[in-house]
Amino acid sequence: MKVIAVVSGGIDSVTLAYKLKAERHELQMISFDYGQRHRKELDFAKRAASALRVDWHPINLAAAGVGEILSGSALTDREVAVPKGHYAADNMSVTIVPNRNAILLAIAFGLAVSSSSDAVAFAVHSGDHPVYPDCRPEFIASFEKMELLATERAITLLAPFVGGTKTEIVALGAKLGVPFHETWSCYLGEAVHCGACGTCHERREAFQLAGVPDPTEYARTPALPPA
Amino acid sequence: MKVIAVVSGGIDSVTLAYKLKAERHELQMISFDYGQRHRKELDFAKRAASALRVDWHPINLAAAGVGEILSGSALTDREVAVPKGHYAADNMSVTIVPNRNAILLAIAFGLAVSSSSDAVAFAVHSGDHPVYPDCRPEFIASFEKMELLATERAITLLAPFVGGTKTEIVALGAKLGVPFHETWSCYLGEAVHCGACGTCHERREAFQLAGVPDPTEYARTPALPPA
Repeated sequence: MKVIAVVSGGIDSVTLAYKLKAERHELQMISFDYGQRHRKELDFAKRAASALRVDWHPINLAAAGVGEILSGSALTDREVAVPKGHYAADNMSVTIVPNRNAILLAIAFGLAVSSSSDAVAFAVHSGDHPVYPDCRPEFIASFEKMELLATERAITLLAPFVGGTKTEIVALGAKLGVPFHETWSCYLGEAVHCGACGTCHERREAFQLAGVPDPTEYARTPALPPA
Repeated sequence: MKVIAVVSGGIDSVTLAYKLKAERHELQMISFDYGQRHRKELDFAKRAASALRVDWHPINLAAAGVGEILSGSALTDREVAVPKGHYAADNMSVTIVPNRNAILLAIAFGLAVSSSSDAVAFAVHSGDHPVYPDCRPEFIASFEKMELLATERAITLLAPFVGGTKTEIVALGAKLGVPFHETWSCYLGEAVHCGACGTCHERREAFQLAGVPDPTEYARTPALPPA
């Protein structure tokens, strides 16, 4: 089937692309600059597309003027600090980017229509649910239904990891040969992974729990979460 | 209430903005360049914002690289001709831009979240329904529901003209003092309205039926539709 994968360049979405390719789907990838501090993640999305030999569509929403209207998040607003420590709803909610997934998916569905694709895929997992409403199963079902009415095409919204954990994604990625050193997680987007922010902690923990060597260079090694 | 109006610069959306302002809502306007031939309509959106003294947010999706992925429509693709004559589903369907309203509305909802607004408004009317699925009441209800799940905010999607006709919009606009000569409809986007395309015919007819003088300069006068 013809599938558009939304790929940020992180572990989850790059593993998703490798999985779809392994399943022999006719794949295209789309990635978004929405003014995130860690836009360097996009370099890794590009490398994944190149390694998988698939078309890559970079969309620069920051250039469109969307970045400013999505301000107020620690990911897009230099005046809001990226929270440190482990993921938890109360500290990570400042990393919510207003309506991000609806915006990115709507554009991906536009590409799906114009390229006569059958599905759009994205890499949300169960660890995203407590913090991000636009990663939950009920959002996904509702979005797909809305798109059927908008486009009159039965385009599926695939979220194969939605019921799973990041640990399971790392385990699958290891099996598929995902070059994890060519993925990016850290929300700060500096020279190396900071090791202090929530997403660095989450990354480190997933490798640990999956029993997969973590090739990431961290500025400081993230502690494992309290048992 | 705080409202974001999606305004293209045509009769319908400019009248919508005047209506919302007359109702004393706290108004902002958002407009989109999505690679449409008639992007000159945006100049008229800007003028409306200036006349109403409200903030205007121009979003340049063409600069973002979205224009090409929305190709295949007569509105965005120079290789597809704009159809002439009266609106009818069979000839106007080439003017559908893939997933346009879902994309534009998702971005408008992002602005609604970051500006703590209560509603997004757009100017679809009953004449749009036969051709454009993303202008129908069932799409509107579904989109609003999806956004509640995406954002966890009860932001209303207002479409006050959805049950009405373009003729009624022109009649209302005349009452509200809308400067119709500062609105743009023609899909070709040349120096003056072509008078030959579907939207020129629709424009001319609405003025005629509303009994309102049509200030538009047409390259050739559109014929009224067969009775």
